Amino acid sequence: MFSKSMEEMREDSIEDHTTHESETPSDPQLEVKGLQILQKKKKIEKDDDEEEEQLSVEQIFQHKKVPSWREQLTVRAFVVSLFLSVLFSFIVMKLNLTTGIIPSLNVSAGLLGFFFVKTWTKFLDKTGWLKVPFTRQENTVIQTCVVASYGISFSGGFGSYLFGMSESVAEQSPNFNDSMNVKNPQISWMIGFLFVVSFVGLFSVVPLRKIMIIDYRLTYPSGTATAHLINSFQTPAGAKIAMKQVKTLGKFFTFSFLWGFFQWFFTAGNNCGFVSFPTFGLEAYANTFYFDFSATYVGVGMICPHIINVSVLVGSIISWGVMWPLIDKKAGSWYSSSLSSSSLNGLQGYQVFISMAMILGDGLYNFVKVLGRMLFNMSKDIRDKRNGVLPVADRDSLAGPPLSYDDERRTKLFLKDQIPNWVAIGAYITIAIISIITVPFIFPPLKWYHILVIYIVAPTLAFCNAYGCGLTDWNLASTYGTLAIFIIGAWAGASNGGVLAGLAACGVLMNIVSTASDLSQDFKTGYLTLASPRSMFVSQVIGTAMGCVIGPCVFWVFFNAFSDLGQPGSQYPAPYAMVFRSMAILGVEGFSSLPQHCLQLCYGFFAASIVINGIRDSVGKKWSQYIPLPMAMAIPFYIGSYFTIDMCVGSLILFVWQKINRAKADAFGPAVASGLICGDGIWTLPSSVLALARVSPPICMKFLSSATNARVDAFLGS
Amino acid sequence: MFSKSMEEMREDSIEDHTTHESETPSDPQLEVKGLQILQKKKKIEKDDDEEEEQLSVEQIFQHKKVPSWREQLTVRAFVVSLFLSVLFSFIVMKLNLTTGIIPSLNVSAGLLGFFFVKTWTKFLDKTGWLKVPFTRQENTVIQTCVVASYGISFSGGFGSYLFGMSESVAEQSPNFNDSMNVKNPQISWMIGFLFVVSFVGLFSVVPLRKIMIIDYRLTYPSGTATAHLINSFQTPAGAKIAMKQVKTLGKFFTFSFLWGFFQWFFTAGNNCGFVSFPTFGLEAYANTFYFDFSATYVGVGMICPHIINVSVLVGSIISWGVMWPLIDKKAGSWYSSSLSSSSLNGLQGYQVFISMAMILGDGLYNFVKVLGRMLFNMSKDIRDKRNGVLPVADRDSLAGPPLSYDDERRTKLFLKDQIPNWVAIGAYITIAIISIITVPFIFPPLKWYHILVIYIVAPTLAFCNAYGCGLTDWNLASTYGTLAIFIIGAWAGASNGGVLAGLAACGVLMNIVSTASDLSQDFKTGYLTLASPRSMFVSQVIGTAMGCVIGPCVFWVFFNAFSDLGQPGSQYPAPYAMVFRSMAILGVEGFSSLPQHCLQLCYGFFAASIVINGIRDSVGKKWSQYIPLPMAMAIPFYIGSYFTIDMCVGSLILFVWQKINRAKADAFGPAVASGLICGDGIWTLPSSVLALARVSPPICMKFLSSATNARVDAFLGS
Repeated sequence: MFSKSMEEMREDSIEDHTTHESETPSDPQLEVKGLQILQKKKKIEKDDDEEEEQLSVEQIFQHKKVPSWREQLTVRAFVVSLFLSVLFSFIVMKLNLTTGIIPSLNVSAGLLGFFFVKTWTKFLDKTGWLKVPFTRQENTVIQTCVVASYGISFSGGFGSYLFGMSESVAEQSPNFNDSMNVKNPQISWMIGFLFVVSFVGLFSVVPLRKIMIIDYRLTYPSGTATAHLINSFQTPAGAKIAMKQVKTLGKFFTFSFLWGFFQWFFTAGNNCGFVSFPTFGLEAYANTFYFDFSATYVGVGMICPHIINVSVLVGSIISWGVMWPLIDKKAGSWYSSSLSSSSLNGLQGYQVFISMAMILGDGLYNFVKVLGRMLFNMSKDIRDKRNGVLPVADRDSLAGPPLSYDDERRTKLFLKDQIPNWVAIGAYITIAIISIITVPFIFPPLKWYHILVIYIVAPTLAFCNAYGCGLTDWNLASTYGTLAIFIIGAWAGASNGGVLAGLAACGVLMNIVSTASDLSQDFKTGYLTLASPRSMFVSQVIGTAMGCVIGPCVFWVFFNAFSDLGQPGSQYPAPYAMVFRSMAILGVEGFSSLPQHCLQLCYGFFAASIVINGIRDSVGKKWSQYIPLPMAMAIPFYIGSYFTIDMCVGSLILFVWQKINRAKADAFGPAVASGLICGDGIWTLPSSVLALARVSPPICMKFLSSATNARVDAFLGS
Repeated sequence: MFSKSMEEMREDSIEDHTTHESETPSDPQLEVKGLQILQKKKKIEKDDDEEEEQLSVEQIFQHKKVPSWREQLTVRAFVVSLFLSVLFSFIVMKLNLTTGIIPSLNVSAGLLGFFFVKTWTKFLDKTGWLKVPFTRQENTVIQTCVVASYGISFSGGFGSYLFGMSESVAEQSPNFNDSMNVKNPQISWMIGFLFVVSFVGLFSVVPLRKIMIIDYRLTYPSGTATAHLINSFQTPAGAKIAMKQVKTLGKFFTFSFLWGFFQWFFTAGNNCGFVSFPTFGLEAYANTFYFDFSATYVGVGMICPHIINVSVLVGSIISWGVMWPLIDKKAGSWYSSSLSSSSLNGLQGYQVFISMAMILGDGLYNFVKVLGRMLFNMSKDIRDKRNGVLPVADRDSLAGPPLSYDDERRTKLFLKDQIPNWVAIGAYITIAIISIITVPFIFPPLKWYHILVIYIVAPTLAFCNAYGCGLTDWNLASTYGTLAIFIIGAWAGASNGGVLAGLAACGVLMNIVSTASDLSQDFKTGYLTLASPRSMFVSQVIGTAMGCVIGPCVFWVFFNAFSDLGQPGSQYPAPYAMVFRSMAILGVEGFSSLPQHCLQLCYGFFAASIVINGIRDSVGKKWSQYIPLPMAMAIPFYIGSYFTIDMCVGSLILFVWQKINRAKADAFGPAVASGLICGDGIWTLPSSVLALARVSPPICMKFLSSATNARVDAFLGS
C-alpha cells in the first residue's frame, strides 16, 4: 500500500494549486515525472516535426473522426489488455513480495499497448483486412483496462493485508497466531472477496466525475502525462519515436530475461547465486549491503528520481549501517538473546515498528497537508461562488481564451456519453449489500456492521482521495487503509479476532479508495484523448474483473512455487505483510508487545518523519530536492540494503547517461528501465513454473569465507 | 615458443613474394595484421587531414631534422622503455604461464611509448625546459628497446624449455626426473645463462642487415606496420588519433585492472572465483568448457583474426568435446586407470603428445615451405644477376620511379651509420667462446662441443629465420628450437642427462634465432622511420640487457608467489613447459613411453596437420580463410577449452562492433584489446605481491552441484 505511494512520491513538492500555475508544464517548479516525460516527448516531436508544434493537440487531430463509445471497445484491445495484464501482474506481484516498491508502469503499459495494436493493425492493413483503424481512444481503453487490472495485484493486498493474514506471517509474532486471527490464502475466497469489494469503488466516483474533471479542472498529473503520451504516439513523429523506444525496451527486455534465466542456474539452495553475491565483502553482506544483480531494481532506480534513490540509501545506512548493528549488541539486555531471528520481540521488532512509525508519520503529515489544501480550495470556491466568481480551478482557462478550442471540444465529448447517476448509486448500494452479506462469511471476525460503517464512510473518503490525487498525484489509499486497521481492529477487540478483522477491513476500504483515485486519473486521460467516459468505465469494469481473477492466480503461483514466501531473509520476504499485521496487532493490543526502548525510538522516528517533511515543504524547491523523503528512507529499515544498492546503480547509470547525452537519456531511459523491469518480471513466470514442477537449479554458487572454505574443502575431500 | 608463432600465424596466407605485389598495402590478398592497422591509420588520417595524404611520408617529414644517432638515444627514452619493459614482461610472463598464446604487443608498446614521452615533452614544453623535441626516431628507439626486452620473457623459455627443466614439471612424467635431468629455476643462473646466450643473436645478423633491407627489400610486415604506426603518430592528425586511442586504452586498462582486483576477492582456495565459473553448467565445466571472465583472453581474442579464434574453438571441441571424453572411457583398457591425473602415461599423455604432433606437423610444413620459397627466390636472384637483371625484390621499386624520394632518403640514412663487420664478427666469436665455457657449468649434461656445434650452425639458421621472417612474417624460432631438443638430446643420450641437455640446447639456439629475426624487423622499422641502424642496435643491446634481468626477476616473482606453477589444472599450468619436456623425453627415449594407441593417433594428427596446411595453401585465399589453422587448433588440446571461449567472446565483440561501426572498430579495437590485456596483466603484479605476502583473499565463490550443496549445507549447519 505504502509502496504505491512511492510512485506518487515523485510528485513530492508540487506547487500549491492555488497559485494557478500547475497546468503549465513548463513551470520549472512542477516536477511530475509524467509531465517530464511529456515534455521530453514534445521536445523530440519538435525536432522531428517543427510545424505541427504550432497547432494545438486537438487541431492536429481535428480531421480524425472520434469513434463512438461502442467502437472504442474493440476485441483486439481487450485481448492485448489481457496479455499485458498478466505481464504486469507478474511484475507487480514480484515487486509486492520483494520490497513493495512499485514504480510507475503506466508508460510501459501505454507503450506496449500501442506497440501490440499498432503491429497488429499494420499487419492487417498490409493484408487488406483492416476494418477499424487504431485510434488513440482505443489506446486509452487498453491503458485503462491494464491499469485497472494490474492495480488489483497491488490493492488486492497480496503483499500486504491479505498475505498478512496467512499463517507463515502470523507465526513470526508470538501473539495472535491462533486460528481466529489467521486465514491462509486460497484461490477461491481471494477471487470472491476481490469481486465483492473491487467494483464498489468504480461506482462511488462516477457521480463526482464531472465535478473533478470539468468543474474543478483538477490536474491529475499521472493521468495527464499518460494522455499526452498517447496523443503523441498517435501523431506520425510520435509513432516513430514510440517504435524506437519499443525497440530499446525489447532489447533490454531480452537481456534482462536472459540474465534472469542465467542467474537461475546458480541458485540451488539458500544463499546461492548472484542474489547473494557479497559484492562488498562478507562483513557488508551480513549487514545486507551488497549488489544483488537484480535487473528489476536497477530499472526501478532508473525510473525513480535520484532523490528517492538517495533517500533509500540514506535510510539503509542509518538502519543497517548504524542502528541495527548497535541494537544487535544489546541482545540479552534490551531483549532476550534466545529469541529466533524473526521474532517481533527481538531485533526484528525494532526494524518493523520503527519502519512503521516513519511510514505512519509521513502518511499522517501528507494526509493533513492534502486535506488542508483540499478544504482551503473548496472553501475558497464556495466563497468565490457566493461572490459570483468562477471556481478556482476554472480560472486556469482564463489565462488563455475563455475556453480554448481543445477544452471546448474535450468538454463536449466528455459530457456526451453520460453514465446515469441512478445507475451508479443503485449499483453501489446493490454491491454494498452483497458485500455486507458475503464478506463476514469469508472473515468471520469482521461483522456486518463493521462493513456497513465502512460503506457509509467510504464515498466521502473516496472523494477525498480522488480530489487529493487530482491536486497532488498522491494516492493516500494506504493511509486510509491503516486507519481502518486500527479502528476496526480495536472495535472488534483482541478476543474476537481483531487482527484478522482489522486486516480485512483495511482490504475493503482500500479497494474502494484506491479504485476511486485510479478511475479519476483515467477519466482525466480519457478527457484529454477524447475517449468516451462510458467506454472508459466499461474498460475499467472489464479490467477490474480481469484483475480479480488474474491477481489471485498470479499470487497463487508464487505462493505454491516458493515455499518460503514471506520469511524474512528469503527471496520473497513480502515486507509489508509483516508491517500490516504488526499494525493490526498494535491496534488490538497496544504497545505492550514492543521490545525495550522500541516505543521511544518509534516516537523519535515518527516525529523525525513529520519534521523532515515539514522542512522539505518549508525550505523551498531549491533545497528540498536535497532532503531525503522519510517514506523512502523507511523502506530499507525492514527489508535490508541490497535493493538500495541496485537502485543507486540504476540511478548512477541514468546520471552518467544524462551527463553524456541528456536528450537521449531522457527519451530512452524510461524504455531501458521498463525493459529491465519487464524482462526480469516475466522471467518469474517460467521460474515459478520450474519451481512448481520441482525442477531445481543444477548449481549452487556459494560464497564462503576463507576459513569456512577450508573446512568445506576438507569435508568434501574426505 | 610455438606460441609466438601465433602472432605470425595471422599472416598465414601471404601472397608469394615472387609475384612482386606484396609491397602494395592495398593489395586485397595481403592480409597482414600490421598492414591492416596501417591502412586504418591512413584511412583515419585521410578523414582528418585530406591534403597531407597527397605527399609521400618522407615529403611530409622533409622539414624535420633527423637527429644524429647519439641524439636518438635519450635518457628519457630508456626510462620509458624500462617502465614499459616491466609492464610487458609481466603480461608476457602471465600469458606464457597460462596458455602460451601471446598476441602482438608491438602496437601497445608503440602507443604507450609515444604517450609517455609525448606527455613528458608536452609538460616540459609548457614549463619551457624542453631542450630536445620528441622525434619519431626516438619513438622507434623506445619501441625497439621494449620489444627486445620483453622478447626475452618469451625467448627465455620461462614458459617452455627453461621451466621445463624444473622439478615440478619433471615430476609429472615417470621417467627422467632424476637430479641429472632436473634443474630448478634460480634467479642467479637464469640471469647468467640469458646474458651469455642472448647477445650472440644480435651480432649474427648485423653483417646481413644491408642484404635484407636494402638489397632484397624484404617486406617484414610487422616491422613495416610498426614503422607506419610511428610515422603516423608523429604527424599532427596521427597524434590526435593516437591520443584518442591512448584514452580508450587507458579506460579499458582501468576497467580490466579493477575487474582483476574485484575477482581476486573471491578466489580463496582452489576452484574458487570467476576463473572457475561453470558458465555452461557443471558437465561442460568438467570438460573445461566455460567462460572464465579473463579480460586478457577476451582482449587476445579481439586482436587475433577471427579464424584463429575459430581454430582454437574447433580444436577444443575436437579434443575436449569429443576425443578426451572417449579416451577417458578407455581407462583401464588403453592405460592403467590407477594413474594420477597428471601422469603422461594416462590421458595426459594423449593430450600432450597429440598436441605436440600437430604442432610439429605444422612447424615442419611451414619450415619446408619457407625454406623452399627462400631457396627459390635466392636462386632466381643469382640467375637474374648473372643475366644482369636487378634482384627480384628490388624490382618492386620499378613499379614507381626507379628509386622513389622516400626510398632514396631512407637508403641514404640507413647506410650512413654503419656497424663495422669486424666488430660484429669479433663480438660474436668472443661471446660464443664465453658461452661455450660457461654454459656447461650451468647445465653439466650440455657439453662444450654441443654448444660449439650450435654456434657454428646458428648463423646460417639465424639468416634463414631472418630471411623467412622478412618474407612471410613467420618467426620459426620454436621449430629450430625443437630441432635442437631432439638432436642434442639424442646425442647426449639417456644416461648422460639427455633431457636437460636437449632443453638447454634448445635455449641456446632459440635465443640466437629468435633475436636475429626480431632485430631484422627492427631494422626495417628503423629504415622506414629514418632511425639510425647504430642507435637501433644500441637500443636493442640495452633492451636485451634489461630483458636478461627483468625476465628472470618477473618469473621469480611468479615462481615464488604461486606454489602450484606448472601443475595441470592450476591457475598457471605453463602448458609448453610440459610439452617441451615431453619432446626432450621423446627425443631421448623414443616412443616406448607412450600409452596405447597414442602413437597411431599422433601419426594421424601429424599427417592431418600437414594435410590441412596443404589444403589451406592450395585452395586459394577465398576458401583458405575458412579453414582452421592446425597450430591454433593444437593449443587447447592440452590446456583446455576455457580460454577458447574467452577468445571467441572477444572475437564476437569485435565482430558485432565491426558490423555496427567498421571504421571505429578498426581504429579503436586494438586499443580496447590492448587495454584489456595490459590491465589484467598488470593486476598480476599486485596479485603476486599479495600472494608473496601470504595475504589470501577473504571469500571463496564456490560452485557446487545441487546434491553436493545439500551435503555442504548439512555439514555447515551441524
